[in-house]
Amino acid sequence: MSGFVSLVGAGPGDPELLTLKAAPRLAEADLVLYDALVSPETLGLAPRAHRFLVGKRAGRPSVRQETIHRLMIRAADRGKRVVRLKCGDPFVLGRGGEEALALAAAGVPFEVVPGLTTAVAAPALWGIPVTHRGLASGFVVVSGHAEAAYRPILDPLTANSVTLIVLMGLASRRPLASLLIDRGWQGATPAAICLAAGTARAHTWIGTLADLATMLVATDQADAPGTIVIGEVVSVGAALAGALVSHPSALAARQAV
Amino acid sequence: MSGFVSLVGAGPGDPELLTLKAAPRLAEADLVLYDALVSPETLGLAPRAHRFLVGKRAGRPSVRQETIHRLMIRAADRGKRVVRLKCGDPFVLGRGGEEALALAAAGVPFEVVPGLTTAVAAPALWGIPVTHRGLASGFVVVSGHAEAAYRPILDPLTANSVTLIVLMGLASRRPLASLLIDRGWQGATPAAICLAAGTARAHTWIGTLADLATMLVATDQADAPGTIVIGEVVSVGAALAGALVSHPSALAARQAV
Repeated sequence: MSGFVSLVGAGPGDPELLTLKAAPRLAEADLVLYDALVSPETLGLAPRAHRFLVGKRAGRPSVRQETIHRLMIRAADRGKRVVRLKCGDPFVLGRGGEEALALAAAGVPFEVVPGLTTAVAAPALWGIPVTHRGLASGFVVVSGHAEAAYRPILDPLTANSVTLIVLMGLASRRPLASLLIDRGWQGATPAAICLAAGTARAHTWIGTLADLATMLVATDQADAPGTIVIGEVVSVGAALAGALVSHPSALAARQAV
Repeated sequence: MSGFVSLVGAGPGDPELLTLKAAPRLAEADLVLYDALVSPETLGLAPRAHRFLVGKRAGRPSVRQETIHRLMIRAADRGKRVVRLKCGDPFVLGRGGEEALALAAAGVPFEVVPGLTTAVAAPALWGIPVTHRGLASGFVVVSGHAEAAYRPILDPLTANSVTLIVLMGLASRRPLASLLIDRGWQGATPAAICLAAGTARAHTWIGTLADLATMLVATDQADAPGTIVIGEVVSVGAALAGALVSHPSALAARQAV
């Protein structure tokens, strides 16, 4: 029997936010290769699998991309059911496309099981809609990892015309905020940072674009995934904060700047 | 006992792409208010609920937004468990924020259960990653419903700098393509239209931005939801077409322009 690889999106962290399709893939997996930010609760859904952390974690060496490809292909060639478990959606800023091409080139049968992208789900869990009539009719998603990647996209945007979502942008929130303000975005534009969305450590900071640069991240959150949302839609989340039953209680404790 | 409203994302159509959290909400619901494009298979997960279609369908009058609010609030006041079931994610171009604000204003307890947004999941199901190293490090999502909404976002974008995803844009694909080409986007930029993603009717057209305007939609697909993807990432989907096991077979039958 031939092996098989599922490129699976784990969503933002809460195992309940996996898809109905993803759960049995994990339950039946022989091998799970997972990213650093996948929650232990999610990994618990793969009790019979060998599980290997292959993702980057700040300050520690990560497994090379080519090694991930080789591990998947080798296991599939030996008839194993492999799950490549990626945070959020496998095709949003996660090199899932490269992994799919490597599997295709090796002739390994595979599938893509989309997951909830943190770009949309992290704000949604705090009541922030990425679009809202009269406030934003579209949104832009970029990685904050490298200025060379986000600057060509953000530079030409008309100031305050759209909701801006930055993944992997915690470390670059200062230059990001400066860039936008230089380009005419109002410093008073509402902004949010959703930390560790969908996990027990979830916490959201709400402030303004001008404050984003000086906002402090608590030490115990410094390695948490952060989703930055900039735009008037953040005010909807602020208005819903007290009403949303599913709302993590931490929102009330807004962090002083 | 007090009623409760869940704003639930149904994802792109395949009931297996609902979240683990959404499925029991449907199973336990007394009332489901659903959008026109929610699949019958998904509705089948709510066997004990009264189900009402409240969404727009091309050419037919739709239930007014205020009526949807009133139906949710009245049922919750009577102690019912209500699911407001929306295509894709409830907070992406779906007026979910307005519904949440109405519930909050009425003092009705509610939650948001995010769903897979069609903007990311429809291309993913065809092997198209919305980002890909060396091709696109970010993406833009807009509604194609009204030019006044998408033009201010698309106009300033640097040509070919980003993946562009247009929801509800089938009817406006001609002016959309013209706008982009006028703004310097190359006519040869790969483009795709994912029709009825995640359903048995799924079909994807792959061509170029220049062809988008003249691409014909088959009559039986004219009322299907279409996700337009414009950018080099479409070439990844084309490269994966033969390899992806989960791939709807229809991709092979590319539509002549």
